[in-house]
Amino acid sequence: MDTFINGQKWVDIRKKAHDFVTKHSDVFCMRDTYFMSREEILEKVLKQEKLVAQLIQKGELDHELSLAITYVQDTSGPFRLHRSMFMPTLERQANDEQKIAFLEPARKYQILGCYAQTEVGHGSNVRGLETTATFIPETDEFEINSPTISSTKWWLGALGIVATHACVMAQLIVNNKKHGIFPIIVPVRSLKDHKPLPGVHVGDIGPKMGFNTVDNGFVNFDKVRVPRFNLLQRYINVDRNGNVTRPENVDPRVTYSTMVFVRAGIVNNMGKELAKAVTIATRYTAVRRQFSDPASTNKHQETPVLDYQIVQHRLIPLIAKTYAMLAMSHEFYKQYEICKAEIEDGNFSKLKEIHAVSCGLKKWCTDTTIYGVDTCRHLCGGHGFSEFSGLNSAFANLYPNIIWEGDNFVLAQQTARYILKSAHAFEQNKLLPANATSHKISNSDPTNDVFVKYPNNFETCTDYPWINKSASQICSSPELLIELLAYRLSSISFELTNRHYNLNESFNDILVPVQTLSTVYSEYMVCYYFYRHLTKLPNSPEYSKIKQPLLLMFSITALSFLTRNKGELLSCSHRNSQITPKFISNLESELINCYSNARSIAVLLVDSLGIPDSKLNSSLGISNGQVYEDYVSRALENPLNNDTFGDRTRSRWFNQYIGPILKGSNKL
Amino acid sequence: MDTFINGQKWVDIRKKAHDFVTKHSDVFCMRDTYFMSREEILEKVLKQEKLVAQLIQKGELDHELSLAITYVQDTSGPFRLHRSMFMPTLERQANDEQKIAFLEPARKYQILGCYAQTEVGHGSNVRGLETTATFIPETDEFEINSPTISSTKWWLGALGIVATHACVMAQLIVNNKKHGIFPIIVPVRSLKDHKPLPGVHVGDIGPKMGFNTVDNGFVNFDKVRVPRFNLLQRYINVDRNGNVTRPENVDPRVTYSTMVFVRAGIVNNMGKELAKAVTIATRYTAVRRQFSDPASTNKHQETPVLDYQIVQHRLIPLIAKTYAMLAMSHEFYKQYEICKAEIEDGNFSKLKEIHAVSCGLKKWCTDTTIYGVDTCRHLCGGHGFSEFSGLNSAFANLYPNIIWEGDNFVLAQQTARYILKSAHAFEQNKLLPANATSHKISNSDPTNDVFVKYPNNFETCTDYPWINKSASQICSSPELLIELLAYRLSSISFELTNRHYNLNESFNDILVPVQTLSTVYSEYMVCYYFYRHLTKLPNSPEYSKIKQPLLLMFSITALSFLTRNKGELLSCSHRNSQITPKFISNLESELINCYSNARSIAVLLVDSLGIPDSKLNSSLGISNGQVYEDYVSRALENPLNNDTFGDRTRSRWFNQYIGPILKGSNKL
Repeated sequence: MDTFINGQKWVDIRKKAHDFVTKHSDVFCMRDTYFMSREEILEKVLKQEKLVAQLIQKGELDHELSLAITYVQDTSGPFRLHRSMFMPTLERQANDEQKIAFLEPARKYQILGCYAQTEVGHGSNVRGLETTATFIPETDEFEINSPTISSTKWWLGALGIVATHACVMAQLIVNNKKHGIFPIIVPVRSLKDHKPLPGVHVGDIGPKMGFNTVDNGFVNFDKVRVPRFNLLQRYINVDRNGNVTRPENVDPRVTYSTMVFVRAGIVNNMGKELAKAVTIATRYTAVRRQFSDPASTNKHQETPVLDYQIVQHRLIPLIAKTYAMLAMSHEFYKQYEICKAEIEDGNFSKLKEIHAVSCGLKKWCTDTTIYGVDTCRHLCGGHGFSEFSGLNSAFANLYPNIIWEGDNFVLAQQTARYILKSAHAFEQNKLLPANATSHKISNSDPTNDVFVKYPNNFETCTDYPWINKSASQICSSPELLIELLAYRLSSISFELTNRHYNLNESFNDILVPVQTLSTVYSEYMVCYYFYRHLTKLPNSPEYSKIKQPLLLMFSITALSFLTRNKGELLSCSHRNSQITPKFISNLESELINCYSNARSIAVLLVDSLGIPDSKLNSSLGISNGQVYEDYVSRALENPLNNDTFGDRTRSRWFNQYIGPILKGSNKL
Repeated sequence: MDTFINGQKWVDIRKKAHDFVTKHSDVFCMRDTYFMSREEILEKVLKQEKLVAQLIQKGELDHELSLAITYVQDTSGPFRLHRSMFMPTLERQANDEQKIAFLEPARKYQILGCYAQTEVGHGSNVRGLETTATFIPETDEFEINSPTISSTKWWLGALGIVATHACVMAQLIVNNKKHGIFPIIVPVRSLKDHKPLPGVHVGDIGPKMGFNTVDNGFVNFDKVRVPRFNLLQRYINVDRNGNVTRPENVDPRVTYSTMVFVRAGIVNNMGKELAKAVTIATRYTAVRRQFSDPASTNKHQETPVLDYQIVQHRLIPLIAKTYAMLAMSHEFYKQYEICKAEIEDGNFSKLKEIHAVSCGLKKWCTDTTIYGVDTCRHLCGGHGFSEFSGLNSAFANLYPNIIWEGDNFVLAQQTARYILKSAHAFEQNKLLPANATSHKISNSDPTNDVFVKYPNNFETCTDYPWINKSASQICSSPELLIELLAYRLSSISFELTNRHYNLNESFNDILVPVQTLSTVYSEYMVCYYFYRHLTKLPNSPEYSKIKQPLLLMFSITALSFLTRNKGELLSCSHRNSQITPKFISNLESELINCYSNARSIAVLLVDSLGIPDSKLNSSLGISNGQVYEDYVSRALENPLNNDTFGDRTRSRWFNQYIGPILKGSNKL
């Protein structure tokens, strides 16, 4: 199961990373970090980063393994953005000479970089950035300047403490003309003593909700000069005389491809992170007992809380969605690879759709994961609130995913805009796809396919495939569940298309229903990709055992989507569709019926996700089930309780505060 | 407005508390706490607690003001549970002699107490507690014992560091017979040197998601003896010979009254806390600009994000619900007072209903507030993630409210169980209230009244009062909105009553829909009480200005409830009710129409809530609007950036980690 759902490649590298941190547990053990101040934990992570960097320098460890180590450690370090943004930007936007100058030393960690885009007053709207890079012909340099408080670069991971170089996104000005926002490499700290360079005002932005082992920083440039060479030249060129040219053969749409790639990474990562939370909550709710079930045979023994329907209703769909996320991300990634190969051949036909899909999936995956972690925390009761649950640091560290790489509400608008345009084009017969006559699960162009299957003739349509099927027949047929999701998406699409194009409601006036459209689209896509991955299950006996559990996860996912907000299916249902309140409440009953099957294999399902204890770092989720033993022993390790630091601190507090109060002393 | 919505009493005491902390700002200023370790901030709060305790001892400050100071400070301290649980338990459960022995010194802070109920393995189910108090006739003592890991007392605020006494809830055993769970006072630390007493194993449970200025602790008793006198004797008595008696005239139902009281406190507090979050988010989204609205006249100036519909849709209903929470809590509290007075006269008739209301409102208020704070954080974009937003500590500190005093999911079950019983009794004509013929807003018994107005004859009913009214007529009539909420509640009630009583589905089989029932009940009650408070608005000219804004807040609250999940109204609607998808989507359009009116007064609305800057402790919510100036200056105050601690730390990190990496040194 682990191999099928996570992929052989990941299973292998996760093992290598786990072996590595186990071998170096003196450096990598994170158990005591819950007691550390931000500075102490930053220092611990710097020590880990040093070991990894040195082994990379010696060629004993590669880039990919360094990323897997971060995953197993469950901690992002100060070099994260050096790896995930600084180097990739150089790979994509530097020319060969610049790669030698910047990328090669970066790979060897001889320089440490950050990516400096966001400003304190400017986020999503990149065109609004204020920092300027002005060409100075006299000296053949660019002058970098941040003229206002709001132009201060902000949130830049790796910059607060470690970076020596920044890749600064700045408004390019040549001959008094603005040319747009481009990246330019600016040294910020001395390689010798790490002091800020002249004109560079740089520091750490301070404590955050999470992610505190990353040194998000700020920087302000007071007319700092860099050589003209430092402007990354893949998409723009400024020559010695100030002539600005853009290379031919570069389609501006390729930047969309980069965004799709980054979002594909987030989507893939979210499944792995939700896996951690459901592992903890499932193991703990299987151990934790509260009250006796009146139906139980043993009246003296309390009932495991996982046996209660309301606990199952909150947890089991999350287990299912974890499987959905992991499975569908394989298919989404494959789709991205196909699209990328086509782009390299100059064919951009799939780009818009995959961009819309990536926006919707990024939103769905991050919302589902982050609020899923929150649900898991609540499911653990009071103990979820302890840091030893492992769920609080997870929630806090994952949280920015709903904001960065496009705020989720803004991304939903982009997805919806694409769907509305497609639906409108379809109505006008401009975009009828070649394979319009068949709806096959292997189709690679789902949006149009959805419109073909359920065109805007709902009122006259009579052959809805679920007609006269019982709820249990529908629930055991993945194809019928996907049909229902497609029907819901189609009818909501055409309703909004009508409001926007025929009734002339502006896009800004329908921003609220647009969010729903993005959600039902993403839910359709998740099931579509999830099921496509399931059809690839090898037909060998060793895989037959996991087929039923996977189909159960599929049904639970699809049913929880369809019954999430009954009004969506109901209010868009048409005369002949036979979708009534009773129809939906029967689907809901089927969903609840699925829980007992899933309950019996719940612990096996999360064990199969393969999360090592070192990543869980959780008393409640400990794999040997000795929850309370581990929990109590962690509390005893609290430095405030020990007889060195703890004794000293408590004595001081008693002498200075508590003692005088008890004695009624007036001395302040 | 402040006076009407918060009440004169609170406005006055809040001002006194604010004046007090301003006068002692050297002790009470919390600005730098974002940079502190848990020990540092605990020490700072201990210093504040000492000043407050000493002024109480001198008679210069009273108990109520000490609570208001905690509110203004936005920080709970180690004495919180001494005030909120230890002393109140003594007030209610100690006899006169015991009050002299324990309560009087507690009031003078000569002893410091905690309330020790929860055990590491036992939470909601009080009867499952394992700690025992066994009567030892030979010495006239009780022996307190925690025999297992799971019986370790856990989560006890004030115990980790400060408490000298614990009020231990233990299984009382006399003559080998178990008598149930009762409170007994056990000294835990020496008053002289604060060392744990023999047999007492006590400490701090370690870091939590929030609430880290409270010293939640654990304690384990190894056969600790206390005098028989220490068993609190209001509800039980054990005499010298081991005879156990319970005093007459004590109705066990009074404990429900205590729970109602505690929940009323939470409900009241939540409105004040949500007020903080909406103040921050409203002020910041009015300042923050992103993109240009194509309809704007000034193309160069970006648009304040509060002008976008999707931002309004997330924020404005939260402002309205803040007003709803504050207004309705006045009425709920009055209702509680009436009920309490009746109980003192031996009349328990209102108790069950008010208990059900308190469960539902506690759930609604805490869910709405905590996830409302989260929404406000997300509305602030990336900067919401910075600690300087003030929203992260708020979220983390408020979070346990969804768990303590009854987990929200369990409370919903209690509310629903009561409604189902009432609806069933009504059907059988057992409980037809005296005033069955009139539905008046002043009625004090809403549940039955709802059934009377919409009895289980929906199919034959034809006089629904919203029939033939336009959406805008409905929206401008609070009475009609309340009718719709009552109709939704009644029909969902009778549907579930039918499933439970006629179709014999067990309560455990309907736990999922039961949650919805509790929600629609609470939403009805919120509007019912909110509107009742509005009808008390004085008819003087000075109040006429605030009437329209308050009615707008009412409409937005009610409409957001009715359109939250369209399936609820739709799937329960009956033939003659004329509730169609179109009807609901018209209500939704009216809701969206309300936003522009509310947008124009949004900043005034939050200013009227009267939250002082010292409580906000937020760059984004600063009252003078200088958001980015304050934000950048706080980052500069980060100790990691200064030239003493910061310089020293950064140099060390450079010499030990970063420098060797840049130089490619192999030295680990």
